[in-house]
This record gives sequence, C-alpha cells and structure tokens, in this order.
Amino acid sequence: MSAMFEKIAVLGLGLIGSSICHGVKAQGLAKVLVGHAKSAETRKVALEIGLVSEVFENPADAVNGADLVILCAPVGACAALAEATGKQLREGAIFTDVGSVKGAIVRDCAPHLPLNVHFIPGHPIAGTEQSGPRSGFAELFHHRWCILTPVAGTDVAAIEKLTKFWEALGSNVDVMTADHHDLVLAITSHLPHLIAYNTVATAADLETVTDSEVIKYSASGFRDFTRIAASDPTMWRDVFLNNKEAVLEMLGRFTEELAVLQRAVRWGDGETLFNLFTRAREVRRGIIAAGQDTAAPNFGRDKS
Amino acid sequence: MSAMFEKIAVLGLGLIGSSICHGVKAQGLAKVLVGHAKSAETRKVALEIGLVSEVFENPADAVNGADLVILCAPVGACAALAEATGKQLREGAIFTDVGSVKGAIVRDCAPHLPLNVHFIPGHPIAGTEQSGPRSGFAELFHHRWCILTPVAGTDVAAIEKLTKFWEALGSNVDVMTADHHDLVLAITSHLPHLIAYNTVATAADLETVTDSEVIKYSASGFRDFTRIAASDPTMWRDVFLNNKEAVLEMLGRFTEELAVLQRAVRWGDGETLFNLFTRAREVRRGIIAAGQDTAAPNFGRDKS
Repeated sequence: MSAMFEKIAVLGLGLIGSSICHGVKAQGLAKVLVGHAKSAETRKVALEIGLVSEVFENPADAVNGADLVILCAPVGACAALAEATGKQLREGAIFTDVGSVKGAIVRDCAPHLPLNVHFIPGHPIAGTEQSGPRSGFAELFHHRWCILTPVAGTDVAAIEKLTKFWEALGSNVDVMTADHHDLVLAITSHLPHLIAYNTVATAADLETVTDSEVIKYSASGFRDFTRIAASDPTMWRDVFLNNKEAVLEMLGRFTEELAVLQRAVRWGDGETLFNLFTRAREVRRGIIAAGQDTAAPNFGRDKS
Repeated sequence: MSAMFEKIAVLGLGLIGSSICHGVKAQGLAKVLVGHAKSAETRKVALEIGLVSEVFENPADAVNGADLVILCAPVGACAALAEATGKQLREGAIFTDVGSVKGAIVRDCAPHLPLNVHFIPGHPIAGTEQSGPRSGFAELFHHRWCILTPVAGTDVAAIEKLTKFWEALGSNVDVMTADHHDLVLAITSHLPHLIAYNTVATAADLETVTDSEVIKYSASGFRDFTRIAASDPTMWRDVFLNNKEAVLEMLGRFTEELAVLQRAVRWGDGETLFNLFTRAREVRRGIIAAGQDTAAPNFGRDKS
C-alpha cells in the first residue's frame, strides 16, 4: 500500500516500539521512520538492526516534521516526553502512545500538547515477557486488540486514520473512555501481573522448600506465573503507580473471593471447589473461541 | 529395549494414564498393557485409539497377573481402587500411582495392599490443561521430573525398577518423603492453581467490566491464568481436599506477601514494587536454565 504517513517518530524502542517499527516497515506505512531512545546502547542497536533510518538522543529532534508520533516509553516517562516534544510537533500531527494506563497519560501529557495536534491515547493489548530493542517482531499485534481512548471532541478523521494504522499492523481496534480502559485492564492485566509477582515472591521466601526444588518442579503450574513475572520491572512499577484506584478495587475483590476459597479448603467443602473450578473452564473456552489464545495443550510448548 | 514388565495395568485412562500408555507402547516397556476406566465411553475410546490391548470395567480384572499397576485416577478415587484390587495383586508386583498428593495416598491406599506387594507412591510433574483418554501423548514426560515417595523399608530393587520405568518414559526421578512432596507441590502447583481459579472467578463476577471485555483483552496477562484454571475440576477438588494443611500454610504466606504489595501500591512506593519485580525475573531465568520452560517469548505461541 502507499505510505499512510510521511514520517513516523517512535519515541522509545523497547518491545512495543521495536515491534511497531518492524510492522511499519513490513507494511510500508511510513515514507520515513525515525526513533528516539534514552539509552546510547539502544540507539546503537536500533541502527544496527535497522529498526529506523535515524535515531535521536533528543526526542524533539525525532518528532520534527512527523505526522505520527508514538510514545512507547514506560507510563512514568510519558509526561516528560510530551513536554520535551510538544512545541516541536507539526500542525495536524497525530500524537499517540501505547501505555498500559490511560487516565494518567491523558492527565500528564495533555497539558504539554498544542491544540493543533490530535492527541489520541492508545494501548495495544499485546506483549511478551521480553524487553529491549531486539525483542520486537511485526507479528506481535496480529489478531490482538488495540484500544484507543480519545477525549470528547477529538477529530474523527484523525481517529479513523490511527485506527487504520493499527489495523494495518494486524490489530482490531476498539474505542472507549480512558476510565473504562483502566478498569478493564486492571482485571485483565494489572491484577494478574500483581498476583504473579506475589506468587513468585512467596515461593522465593520459603525456608521449608528450596529455590532449586521450586525450579525443578515448576512445570506443575508455577512456571506460567514466572513468565508473567519476568516482564519489565520499570514498566510495571509505573502501571501500579498510575492505576492505583482500579488495581486496589480489583485486589479487594480478589481477596474477598480468596477468603471464600480458603474457607472451602479449610472445611473440606468439595462442592464449592468443584463448582468454582468448573465455571473457570468456560472462561477459557471463550478465550480460545475468540482467537485470543491457542487451544494447543500447554500453549503448544511440550511438543516444540 | 526388551520389555521391562510382563504386564502393566493402568487404572484410569485420563491425561496421565493415556500418556503413560503411549509412552509404554512407544518404548516397548510391557509385553501386555491393559487398562481400567470407570466410564464406558472412556473404555470405548481407549480401544478405538489403541491405548491398551484390553480394557476392563472391573479394576480387579485389570490387575490380574500384572507386575506393574499404576493408579491414574483422581486422588479421591485411589483408596477405592486399592481396596478393589488389593486382594488380586500378584506377589512381588509394584503398585504405584501418579497422584498430585502423596501423604493422603499413602494413608488411604496402604491399608488395602498386601505385604508381598511393593507400594511406591509416585508423581510425575507433568500435565496440560486438557483431560480425557484422547488428551495423552508420549512426550508429556520428556525432561520432566517424577517424584517417588516410598516409605522406609521399601525394597530397593523395586524402587530402582520403577525409577528405570520413568526414565524410559523420558523423566528424571527424585525420591523424597511424602510430607516433603506435599509441601513442595503446595507451592509449585497447588497454590498457583488455587490463585488462578480465584483470579478467573474474580473476573467473572465483575459488574463493571463485561465477560466479553475480559475475553477480548485477555492477551494482556489474564489468558495465562485461564489455561491453568481449565484443568480437570475433579482432580483439583481432590488435591485441595487432600493437601489441606500445606495449601493453607502457603495461602497464609501468599496473603501476607500480598498485603505488603497492596500497601506499596496504595502508598505509591515505587521502590518496593521495582525491587520485588526485579527479583521475580531471576526465578524465571533459573527455570529456563533448568530446562523446565521454553525461553521463547509468550511460550512461542505468537509465531505459531
């Protein structure tokens, strides 16, 4: 297809940023694709593996003349990037991001952006436990959802254009409010990560079972939690600092449910356990039917 | 290799039982391989797909003349199978099982077994979220650990023979006490399953986020929990009913840790969060180095 954008600037070249670069190149979505990374090592790698044609230490240099700017930094770093680039943005440019939290991004970035720029916060629901400029791949967004959370009054044509961009990367696109996004992600992503981190921490601190036993026998369930808990620590710290209310709400409900389950274990209430376990199977079937996970046993890893 | 056993009887033909059958056949470990299943449908399927040469409704018929008997039923069904077959067991036979709990198996099965039989409880640390006679495959045990928990005084040659059997199926074998097994599995397997079930239940009960949203956006973490929570409900009910003390102990520690993490979220304590998240990455590295999980991002499922 003919290039959708004259110049795309990707600010932050970790897993998501580098995957966007691969996708943009694979689909020919930009005439020019440039990047910014804070670390000299990342900038070096980005040129070495050809993620972008130019990479800048100063984000303001990267956005110069770009008609699409994508913030791909941890949530806590986005406001500073908006501040550093706001005055350099081209009139009519689309300014978006990929952060896992949307309310805080709107709150912190919007004040730095000029009125003649289309600010459309976004969040591709895709990722792996890996990070850094070498971890990206174009297929990451295939068949995944991308959520956009434009504020009321945002230019419809700009939303439409950004939608087509994500569709070209292989995603489906949904639009919702930032607040609803933060609630949905608190249960589908933030709570599971917090629980996974907590389970790994619990196992690491036992005096009755050795670390080596935990590792050897991890195929019985524990190893799945460690994959999630291997995600980037900075990114996740920023998520929990910036979606506090929704996470605490989901954590409260989780703890309530756990008390019921714990009581069923203590009192040997097999019926409550069986009924709850049976219901959980249905949710799994829904996810597979929706194409959001593989039906292969153990994610297919046993036969690899 | 020449057959290790004259006749192997597999009692219960679900995921583990059928996987053992595939492995026994692939490696030629038995001259005769027979089975028992409670359900007529399972018996029909077992013959149809050739899991065993003969399948019996009455477990006592299946063990007749067998020099290796393997209980592959849910933990709660094992005592009745031991009782039903104990008097028919061949002198010198090895009687083992694959249950996820060992203390209760020893307590409930041993009284039904004659003294001239070698009772060696076992537990292969392998599985998938699938169940039933069609879900088995020979590779399930490859590079996994199998734990044996013989009581003091068990015949060393019999332990050695059962060890070689599991090694022939592709496993490594460890020996420990039943009590220690139950503690180790409480943290590596039982707690993660309980937490996964609880997370899925929490998500299913929200009034502010729809089930369809939970499913659509599950790739952000939640879907991994649903795989674990799709495991066989009967098997897991029996695990929690039969390893109560160790599970409650691990649950108590988990809840303690979670309170600390929740406090860090509430107070915006980024340093505590970052440090805990960084430590969790190390555990993941250990599991991959030990060959107990794939290093491929997202378990490799994105590129399939």
